[in-house]
Amino acid sequence: MSSQPICAVRNAALLDDFQQTRALTFALAAPLSDADATVQSMEDASPSKWHMAHTSWFFETFILRDHVAGYQPFDENFAFLFNSYYEAEGERHDRCQRGMITRPSLDEVRAYRAHVDSAITAHFDALPDDALTLLELGVHHEQQHQELFQTDILHLLSRNPLKPALWPTPRRLHNAATAPLRWIEGKSGIVDLGHDGGSFAYDCEGPRHQMLLTPHALASRCVTNGEWKEFLAAGGYDEPRHWLSDGWAWVQGNNIRAPLYWTQDGDWAQFGNDGMQPIDDAAPVCHVSLYEADAFASWAGARLPTEPEWESAAAALDAHSGNQLDAAGAIRPAPARTSAKAGDGLAQMFGDVWEWTGSAFRPYPGFKPAEGAVGEYNGKFMSGQFVLKGGSCATPRGHVRACYRNFFYPHQRWQYTGVRLAKDI
Amino acid sequence: MSSQPICAVRNAALLDDFQQTRALTFALAAPLSDADATVQSMEDASPSKWHMAHTSWFFETFILRDHVAGYQPFDENFAFLFNSYYEAEGERHDRCQRGMITRPSLDEVRAYRAHVDSAITAHFDALPDDALTLLELGVHHEQQHQELFQTDILHLLSRNPLKPALWPTPRRLHNAATAPLRWIEGKSGIVDLGHDGGSFAYDCEGPRHQMLLTPHALASRCVTNGEWKEFLAAGGYDEPRHWLSDGWAWVQGNNIRAPLYWTQDGDWAQFGNDGMQPIDDAAPVCHVSLYEADAFASWAGARLPTEPEWESAAAALDAHSGNQLDAAGAIRPAPARTSAKAGDGLAQMFGDVWEWTGSAFRPYPGFKPAEGAVGEYNGKFMSGQFVLKGGSCATPRGHVRACYRNFFYPHQRWQYTGVRLAKDI
Amino acid sequence: MSSQPICAVRNAALLDDFQQTRALTFALAAPLSDADATVQSMEDASPSKWHMAHTSWFFETFILRDHVAGYQPFDENFAFLFNSYYEAEGERHDRCQRGMITRPSLDEVRAYRAHVDSAITAHFDALPDDALTLLELGVHHEQQHQELFQTDILHLLSRNPLKPALWPTPRRLHNAATAPLRWIEGKSGIVDLGHDGGSFAYDCEGPRHQMLLTPHALASRCVTNGEWKEFLAAGGYDEPRHWLSDGWAWVQGNNIRAPLYWTQDGDWAQFGNDGMQPIDDAAPVCHVSLYEADAFASWAGARLPTEPEWESAAAALDAHSGNQLDAAGAIRPAPARTSAKAGDGLAQMFGDVWEWTGSAFRPYPGFKPAEGAVGEYNGKFMSGQFVLKGGSCATPRGHVRACYRNFFYPHQRWQYTGVRLAKDI
Amino acid sequence: MSSQPICAVRNAALLDDFQQTRALTFALAAPLSDADATVQSMEDASPSKWHMAHTSWFFETFILRDHVAGYQPFDENFAFLFNSYYEAEGERHDRCQRGMITRPSLDEVRAYRAHVDSAITAHFDALPDDALTLLELGVHHEQQHQELFQTDILHLLSRNPLKPALWPTPRRLHNAATAPLRWIEGKSGIVDLGHDGGSFAYDCEGPRHQMLLTPHALASRCVTNGEWKEFLAAGGYDEPRHWLSDGWAWVQGNNIRAPLYWTQDGDWAQFGNDGMQPIDDAAPVCHVSLYEADAFASWAGARLPTEPEWESAAAALDAHSGNQLDAAGAIRPAPARTSAKAGDGLAQMFGDVWEWTGSAFRPYPGFKPAEGAVGEYNGKFMSGQFVLKGGSCATPRGHVRACYRNFFYPHQRWQYTGVRLAKDI
Repeated sequence: MSSQPICAVRNAALLDDFQQTRALTFALAAPLSDADATVQSMEDASPSKWHMAHTSWFFETFILRDHVAGYQPFDENFAFLFNSYYEAEGERHDRCQRGMITRPSLDEVRAYRAHVDSAITAHFDALPDDALTLLELGVHHEQQHQELFQTDILHLLSRNPLKPALWPTPRRLHNAATAPLRWIEGKSGIVDLGHDGGSFAYDCEGPRHQMLLTPHALASRCVTNGEWKEFLAAGGYDEPRHWLSDGWAWVQGNNIRAPLYWTQDGDWAQFGNDGMQPIDDAAPVCHVSLYEADAFASWAGARLPTEPEWESAAAALDAHSGNQLDAAGAIRPAPARTSAKAGDGLAQMFGDVWEWTGSAFRPYPGFKPAEGAVGEYNGKFMSGQFVLKGGSCATPRGHVRACYRNFFYPHQRWQYTGVRLAKDI
Repeated sequence: MSSQPICAVRNAALLDDFQQTRALTFALAAPLSDADATVQSMEDASPSKWHMAHTSWFFETFILRDHVAGYQPFDENFAFLFNSYYEAEGERHDRCQRGMITRPSLDEVRAYRAHVDSAITAHFDALPDDALTLLELGVHHEQQHQELFQTDILHLLSRNPLKPALWPTPRRLHNAATAPLRWIEGKSGIVDLGHDGGSFAYDCEGPRHQMLLTPHALASRCVTNGEWKEFLAAGGYDEPRHWLSDGWAWVQGNNIRAPLYWTQDGDWAQFGNDGMQPIDDAAPVCHVSLYEADAFASWAGARLPTEPEWESAAAALDAHSGNQLDAAGAIRPAPARTSAKAGDGLAQMFGDVWEWTGSAFRPYPGFKPAEGAVGEYNGKFMSGQFVLKGGSCATPRGHVRACYRNFFYPHQRWQYTGVRLAKDI
Repeated sequence: MSSQPICAVRNAALLDDFQQTRALTFALAAPLSDADATVQSMEDASPSKWHMAHTSWFFETFILRDHVAGYQPFDENFAFLFNSYYEAEGERHDRCQRGMITRPSLDEVRAYRAHVDSAITAHFDALPDDALTLLELGVHHEQQHQELFQTDILHLLSRNPLKPALWPTPRRLHNAATAPLRWIEGKSGIVDLGHDGGSFAYDCEGPRHQMLLTPHALASRCVTNGEWKEFLAAGGYDEPRHWLSDGWAWVQGNNIRAPLYWTQDGDWAQFGNDGMQPIDDAAPVCHVSLYEADAFASWAGARLPTEPEWESAAAALDAHSGNQLDAAGAIRPAPARTSAKAGDGLAQMFGDVWEWTGSAFRPYPGFKPAEGAVGEYNGKFMSGQFVLKGGSCATPRGHVRACYRNFFYPHQRWQYTGVRLAKDI
Repeated sequence: MSSQPICAVRNAALLDDFQQTRALTFALAAPLSDADATVQSMEDASPSKWHMAHTSWFFETFILRDHVAGYQPFDENFAFLFNSYYEAEGERHDRCQRGMITRPSLDEVRAYRAHVDSAITAHFDALPDDALTLLELGVHHEQQHQELFQTDILHLLSRNPLKPALWPTPRRLHNAATAPLRWIEGKSGIVDLGHDGGSFAYDCEGPRHQMLLTPHALASRCVTNGEWKEFLAAGGYDEPRHWLSDGWAWVQGNNIRAPLYWTQDGDWAQFGNDGMQPIDDAAPVCHVSLYEADAFASWAGARLPTEPEWESAAAALDAHSGNQLDAAGAIRPAPARTSAKAGDGLAQMFGDVWEWTGSAFRPYPGFKPAEGAVGEYNGKFMSGQFVLKGGSCATPRGHVRACYRNFFYPHQRWQYTGVRLAKDI
């Protein structure tokens, strides 16, 4: 039997993914002004317009330029402006100067996106297999940028003393009780980890390999805002013994007193993409650095999970479940269900907040970087960063997997990052 | 005879000045996008939107709030966002964070301006005399910001690799020959300087006082681009002996090789608000720092004029003449007239480029800072800066006087700054 | 049978270790002037005098103050001056200000050492067991500082344009041929790692635990200077694709062109504690960062060993062998023996150069930090650093073990650090 | 009559000056250890050893190398190590790396000095006139460095938590009452200023020229410590309106709360070269910046004197009088005499503290820099600095003149700098 029909199905799904992903980015940008979309609020963040153009540049370069004869680029200058870290693709605009690009405008970038989308759709059926592979990569690449798009614009708006809300505040139930924390024993002995090759994954998620786990347990849910207030009340940010040495220097050098976006004016509130809102004690703490996560765990007499522990526990769960991003709008991590019975397992593993692990982002046994420009992808970032797992409320549903490896430096916290405790047993 | 009619005439002229000045700012902003008007390209520069709102805040605060009963501010938050260095007016937004204010939008700031303009016009006839004095100050204040508006947006656009032109390039006559440089002897002995009190001036321009000048001469025109190319060709930027010690450190620390906005791609070109244009050898060199001006003079065997020398020579000239700003549009310093006969005097004293003097910006004998918030005006800047005289092609015509004291730090050069030579005789 | 005699033997050995270690520090300082011993050449390094006093402070505080009734401290101020990172011991002098302490002088610090040595010796027999445990810790602590003492004074002398030699140059045989590189297969499957508790080790070396290794091989010897010259000649420092992203930023930001202390004046030479000497092509490359080590491995088509791979291979070897420190004097990494027959195993595993592993310095399964001030020891450094194994020519013989975990940041290279390659098989 | 005998007298005096100056430097260094003499405590300061060697290098280079045939330099490397800002003399060691030069030792530098002294003395009689001119310059140059020697070692010792005293504390009379402040009217109209050419002066002190002074008065004595405490108590450091804009930024950026070296532990004390001593309320405030001086004057309703006002008043006074340096030892500014009758004039004009003027350090009319390397002397420093007049307790007696122009940046205060008030009348 021919594989043709199967491929056709797969391809139709890919085109659909492409179109839905492109549409979601469009929707995320709906409430932005030209100015909102242009400013770079810190070196770690990029302008919205840049995310929108860079993801389009990816498709234009690796699909249209390389695989569609006679394709005319939308603008010859965009390759220089919107390349990011693909050194092999030639010179590129200095990362920390991205906020200087007031032109092209947001509308021109929207037109650029439409141009690329039309061209991809028009030529889709004629694309060779390796172009389709790159197209699939491009969709995942754009999903990654959708999360950064949201965290970066949030950071920018947080710097405005007016604290503008990007989206209307949804009706919330703030009377949720905090689910009790239980310890769920994990597997020990040899476990199989990493991507098994059956579907899309980034290079760094493989190869499939084995690890040996020692007896341990994971907390049934994430650390809550209410628990974090206890840490604050106990002087957690004043006591060096809880902190990694680099973390303590970071606390003192930056006068860190609470999670990012927390403001105290009487009660605590936290800025989000629906503006400044009261802290929900039952919801997971969000926007904490690895340093804070580690200090909290140390104070609580526990530790962070290792990546293998986390991944092993998550492998059996549905990665498409939980509080993840389905559509543009207000997002916040949500409380774990309190109806949980003793027999229930791990809550909030996918969605809500990225969970810091205690594992450095380093290659798996047998890892080989992919060849060529696209292959610059992940291996080069394997120093100084820690792995985060599970996705957040800003992660497009469908993007994350148990073996997905997100990574950030230990001081970074503008992502939707939180904490799950672990312990040896 | 009553002074009433005279006052009425004066007041009508003031209202007219107010309205024309406000209209010019509006026109200067015409080609800007919301993004253009929002981004801060360096700490020295401010966003266009900020200039537009800050000048309006001045009128709203010192005229409408203080002198119009029942005035409703356009937005209560703007006082915090758009105050600048008036410490007495309370807390204000951090200067280097001005580029984070993506909201209010450019259109909202335009509406703010219209709101203030209507209120001033509606209440003008009822304003008491001290309010009118402040209104006049506000007009001059806004004219100052009109120049900064132009230099700041130019700097921002220069950071865009696309080098966008803000205005269409005017037809230019590039075949002008360079006027020969002649030395014009200045007055020596006791001269009267400073503002004589008959009309508006800033606090630092007075009091009227006497100085003793020694025999000297001023160059008949500014140093030209062509002469600057000779300095470049002679290795002027490579030879420490021409430079002030701080200037040499600045050259080396910032890899300075030519005036700001000069780019060499075969021939030299210089970026301006009409985009990248070939260098006109006969036009005055522009966008040089005091360090560069001083090094050039040293290399040329001359020196910079002192402020008293310059002001004494300019006192007899028409401060409203020359290449100054009459309307929004493309601006460039222009060549001196070559038809000058031997009997002609000093050319280009007003307009074209601000001329660096060798005088530090310090108070005149008998200077007293004005009282109150508005009086924070100039005295506090009297350290580390040098005086510039004569206005530029970006100075609104009517703003500058012989006794006008502009001042910048010796490394700054994003203003339209140039050089006139002087020598002892 | 009583354990008394055994303890007595153990104790006699401990006193002997103490005295020999203290004597070695004294000898290392012999060629130093008061000035040499005082200056801090960079924030990572400490003055020699500080090392000499700090190690003495450790014994004075944790043994004499805490366990010898009536002990009079040599100087009450020294606790403040010479504490390092023991936050629990109270305020301490700012690390980057250590070079300001011109007084006490080197001779006074020598007197301080003699005072502590006499007191320890006098009271040794009466010390309780936990004091003896701390004394043993203090000996190992001082051995660590002996290595830092040598690397820090080397860095200081390297900053002197006169490039002074600390010790006379020994007679060297520079005609050694480079041993051929062979690949030695390592163990795979489950291996036992970490300290087994039978003797002294730092907290971070345990607990004993198991890891799963995949098939791999280690290079039979370290990367040589000659091979590094090939990397240089191939443009290794100019090609971003070999480098970690942070490493490439480090190369460009610091204009890195060769290993630390290499100077090219015709031929390459490298500064050492016997002054500037020609590069020995057969000797291991030394003073390279993790970034350089990783880039070299990438260029060579190999990778760095993981810590478990390295430790597993080293477990069977004699940790007291090789080119390690026996006495004060000139030190340099030495070529591997070329007489090696095919059947020979791994050379240079202990001594010569610390070998960068690809493993981040993170806790072993079941790791618990020790309690109290002394227990601040290692856990707090577990972010951002990489593990190095095997000791160097500056490591006092007897100090290092297969399970010993040294750690530095990936950009640091003033230690005697080198590279051994590994690969998957 | 031949001028020979006169010259011989002048020359004998010069040799005497040379020898006494050299001996004073030797005496100033007497209490220093090798370490004290080596460390550089901040970029503005230089090591004692450097001052001792650099002043010797001056004589060795410009006299012995250039005018004594066959002279053998003490060490060929010293020209590189101990040149300072004489760009024309070739490459030199980076200023901020001066503290790395642990070798040569203090004793070797003493030997270098002795070598140069012997050679100068031996060849003195044969030196040509222009060499004698340079020798005289060298003596004055060394006197300048004697003051810096004292301020720089004071700064270093102040960084040591032990606060060591360099010299024994002299017996002091702390019961001196504060002399009442009277206003002494200065000359107005045209005055003659600048050096008149009859004896040694630096290039920047001339040419002799005229200035026009407006009516003004100077305070009869310097601002005292007691008055400064009133400024502190009135919140002087908390109130931006007293401060220059750059000064306020400096106060906030550096958390400035009091003059340099003031420490409050109950009562205020100030560190000096005789250690930490109680503040003498009647003595002049010392170690204040121009920013502080200006803010104090503003708070006090006065202003700083201009350089011409100060110099005109000082011209009639004995520049060799007052509290200046006669010999190595403890130094502190001393209270003005309280016995002053109403008819008495200006006290403390020479010695005690350098007095900040409100005049920028810029060239006098007709100023020309000297030619050649030695002529790099002062003109290159004529930006951003303010003039100080009158010398201090650290200035060698005989070094200062009414026309002497000292200059520092407005934030610098590690010199013995104080304040005299002035006002318009």
